[in-house]
Amino acid sequence: MEPERPLDALNQARGKRVIVDLKNQKQITGTLKAFDIHINTVLTDAEEHVDGSLKRKVGTVFIRGDTIVLISAQG
Amino acid sequence: MEPERPLDALNQARGKRVIVDLKNQKQITGTLKAFDIHINTVLTDAEEHVDGSLKRKVGTVFIRGDTIVLISAQG
Amino acid sequence: MEPERPLDALNQARGKRVIVDLKNQKQITGTLKAFDIHINTVLTDAEEHVDGSLKRKVGTVFIRGDTIVLISAQG
Amino acid sequence: MEPERPLDALNQARGKRVIVDLKNQKQITGTLKAFDIHINTVLTDAEEHVDGSLKRKVGTVFIRGDTIVLISAQG
Amino acid sequence: MEPERPLDALNQARGKRVIVDLKNQKQITGTLKAFDIHINTVLTDAEEHVDGSLKRKVGTVFIRGDTIVLISAQG
Amino acid sequence: MEPERPLDALNQARGKRVIVDLKNQKQITGTLKAFDIHINTVLTDAEEHVDGSLKRKVGTVFIRGDTIVLISAQG
Amino acid sequence: MEPERPLDALNQARGKRVIVDLKNQKQITGTLKAFDIHINTVLTDAEEHVDGSLKRKVGTVFIRGDTIVLISAQG
Repeated sequence: MEPERPLDALNQARGKRVIVDLKNQKQITGTLKAFDIHINTVLTDAEEHVDGSLKRKVGTVFIRGDTIVLISAQG
Repeated sequence: MEPERPLDALNQARGKRVIVDLKNQKQITGTLKAFDIHINTVLTDAEEHVDGSLKRKVGTVFIRGDTIVLISAQG
Repeated sequence: MEPERPLDALNQARGKRVIVDLKNQKQITGTLKAFDIHINTVLTDAEEHVDGSLKRKVGTVFIRGDTIVLISAQG
Repeated sequence: MEPERPLDALNQARGKRVIVDLKNQKQITGTLKAFDIHINTVLTDAEEHVDGSLKRKVGTVFIRGDTIVLISAQG
Repeated sequence: MEPERPLDALNQARGKRVIVDLKNQKQITGTLKAFDIHINTVLTDAEEHVDGSLKRKVGTVFIRGDTIVLISAQG
Repeated sequence: MEPERPLDALNQARGKRVIVDLKNQKQITGTLKAFDIHINTVLTDAEEHVDGSLKRKVGTVFIRGDTIVLISAQG
Repeated sequence: MEPERPLDALNQARGKRVIVDLKNQKQITGTLKAFDIHINTVLTDAEEHVDGSLKRKVGTVFIRGDTIVLISAQG
């Protein structure tokens, strides 16, 4: 059965590696631990990437939903 | 019968290829899988395009609604 | 009788050609098919114009309301 | 009696010529026909001005409230 | 007795000359006539100032609250 | 006992000198008189600082909450 | 047991050193004292960093939630 609601799709990504693109052009990669209806998101084992290169390891990170552009699976 | 409400028109695009124009000038193309009243949107088999050329394949992607400018059919 | 509420005026433009000015400086022209209280708007036979020249034909397009500056009749 | 609420003042401008300053630096002049609590506004016989010079006549125009900086009487 | 809530302080400025600093770097001076909980504000005998010099007299002006940075007394 | 909610911490700063950092890069210093849940804030004996130097004295000032980045004690 | 909701993860960081990345490119480090559902946040023993170097010590600081990009543990 296919997901019908956007948050269902996010839910299927729980526990998997994802890439979060932010409005400030940065990308945060990590394991999707939690999210809410505002798309506030928590990643574990997270890394911050700028222009495709690793900038810092950030461990567990809370990302405020309104700074997020999109969330995709880490290939 | 013609659609009367904007979300009806989006609903008719479910399962079809669409182009999503983002506020950050990028375009995401993919198959429209799901959306909600905030226009949070999920595409499958998605690709990110910048200035008309393919930048990366992103598979299934969750797009936060407030970053979207418009959604049109992929010609 | 004159319109008293802004959405009444939009309603009178249904089925007519309109110009939608976006915050990103682009203009979308098309036939006004639907809108809601957020001013999410659907146009058919739509075209995207940048600096007054046609950039692409977009067919039926869903425009997120918060990206819209103004909507006027196509002269 | 003086107006006590901001929308009362707008109401007194109905049917009169006004100047609407937009966040994108443009000005729209026209006859104030309608507005709502979001300050979505409809002008008739409207003109778009940029840097003080007429850019185009836009007839009846719907302006989304969140793009408006201020509304004043046309002197 | 001192004001305890921010809108109480605004209320004490009714009928007095104020300076309204806008997000677009302009200042509007005038007599504070009305405001609401969104800080939508009406000034009378208002003037627009840019970089400290008078740009135009705007008479009675309605300012949308979300464009306001701060409101202070005109010294 | 330690504050548990952010507004409790603000409440403890009432009547004390604070520095308010704004999104437009300016700082307003003054005595914290009042604030509400939107963080609309009133300062008395306030001063506006740009790049660390005093720009003007603004007396009692109402600051719209959504322009505020942070509020700290004046050292 | 793992956190399921984003605010649970923030709650586990109470009393610990965190780094708060702001939309204006600055970072505030400090001990997480309090936060609410808007992600309004209070840090104690806080410092402001710009481009990785200490700019000022700000003691106890209230940060308005909508200026926050992300919150991570200070390594």
